[in-house]
Amino acid sequence: MSVSQSGRLSEQQKQTQANESIFHEKARSLDKKVGKVSQMMPERLKICFPRLTFRFRPDLPKDEVNRVLSSIDPSLGQTLFVPNSSIWPDGGIIEVKDDNGCWRVVLVSEAKQQGKDMENIRNGVLVGKNKDRDLMPAGNAIERAYKNISEFANFMIGEKHFPYVLFLEGSNFLTQNIVVTRPDGTTVTLNYTDGKINRLDRLTASNFGLPINTNLCQNRFATVNNMLLMLQAVSIYTKGDGSQWSEDEMAEIMLGIAKTSLKVLASDLFGQLTEAK
Amino acid sequence: MSVSQSGRLSEQQKQTQANESIFHEKARSLDKKVGKVSQMMPERLKICFPRLTFRFRPDLPKDEVNRVLSSIDPSLGQTLFVPNSSIWPDGGIIEVKDDNGCWRVVLVSEAKQQGKDMENIRNGVLVGKNKDRDLMPAGNAIERAYKNISEFANFMIGEKHFPYVLFLEGSNFLTQNIVVTRPDGTTVTLNYTDGKINRLDRLTASNFGLPINTNLCQNRFATVNNMLLMLQAVSIYTKGDGSQWSEDEMAEIMLGIAKTSLKVLASDLFGQLTEAK
Repeated sequence: MSVSQSGRLSEQQKQTQANESIFHEKARSLDKKVGKVSQMMPERLKICFPRLTFRFRPDLPKDEVNRVLSSIDPSLGQTLFVPNSSIWPDGGIIEVKDDNGCWRVVLVSEAKQQGKDMENIRNGVLVGKNKDRDLMPAGNAIERAYKNISEFANFMIGEKHFPYVLFLEGSNFLTQNIVVTRPDGTTVTLNYTDGKINRLDRLTASNFGLPINTNLCQNRFATVNNMLLMLQAVSIYTKGDGSQWSEDEMAEIMLGIAKTSLKVLASDLFGQLTEAK
Repeated sequence: MSVSQSGRLSEQQKQTQANESIFHEKARSLDKKVGKVSQMMPERLKICFPRLTFRFRPDLPKDEVNRVLSSIDPSLGQTLFVPNSSIWPDGGIIEVKDDNGCWRVVLVSEAKQQGKDMENIRNGVLVGKNKDRDLMPAGNAIERAYKNISEFANFMIGEKHFPYVLFLEGSNFLTQNIVVTRPDGTTVTLNYTDGKINRLDRLTASNFGLPINTNLCQNRFATVNNMLLMLQAVSIYTKGDGSQWSEDEMAEIMLGIAKTSLKVLASDLFGQLTEAK
């Protein structure tokens, strides 16, 4: 590789870094809201279930995932290149202490914002190379969501519930057509089935094409060719009308997911729930 | 949102787009190589297995994934927002025709390049805001790899093999320390366990922490809490010494994966393999 090529790539990489930090800044508001709501969950759950003990933690060390995997088959969970690797979902992790003193996950939450077409149109901002278009072709950064999902699916491989919630906001996640008005009073219709802006199909592999905006915390089992398969599906919640999530709405959904987790885990919480000796 | 804020976001989005296309340009060489090698696979396999019929196709329509999912449980595979959504692995898909005339996947290949630290150091290019550092903190674009993996895992949910190969190149995927020489003769050691550059841990959820550079095509089964789980693991191949993949090396690996697929599928190819009437 020539020096000039290398210089070009270096510039590109710097651009990527700058871009990443801008992306994070843009997305911070929903991230922060989810984090704030999630941190209140132990207290909220304690009110509903005073006999149980809950905790919040911000991250899951990858060596914990490996320990779970290797406990079910010693050939699994053997690789760790960066010893302190950790998984950081936006909303952290909520856990309950079971009758054996083990912490069990009852809620994991993530938040993703993508697509500013509504804001652009409302503010009269045209986009594209020649600044002559209403719609910005959507990016694919959302596909990164699968990494944390896969880590938690592995961590919870022995559980019968998967309390993973993904909150979505933005014009890339519409589930209905939206009419947006330009500053001059004319309107633009955002067609939710337009491949240029809709990115929901990039996420539905994580819920096996089950319905959006639905609590899928309790795992499904399906029989295929004489094999019983356990399906860990993400509960994907999108503001399909282009509006924003309120903290109350998110709290309600998170509580619902956590309660389903506790119901599935009830056998292992029975002692505490009944105070049976 | 104010006009100025919206303008800023629009600029950011344009930057993201520009950046994406640069990323694609940078990665094209390995992508292209994998595509070229994959397209030769039907011919190569035909030489090994003259009684079987193979085909290459560049993409998998998402409605085919949905049809598989809904066939095992009618509640699955029900969402499709953009009707012509399709999954495009870099190396496309190789299939064999089974005794019932159905096409079965024997190989899916992807290629990812990330990390130009070796080239930068060799060329005397310093990076960072003040252009005073040897190493560029690695990005997370690689996490997007999970999206296609999840789609194919769903598509192949009824199979006992998962012939998904991921070829990696670049300083973010080292498995050993590398000494790189600057133009002035001094050296820099790239430590493969350095969290600033190593991104392999971001991928190993896809192979359950099983060994890298290993054919994992045949699914493993594990018993957890009285449940039998089928594990679909990606075969991750990295040039851990910082070198580049040759076409021959990739062809050898791809052939190995495809042969494992055929072995697992043998019962459904028996008629053609034996020409039994």
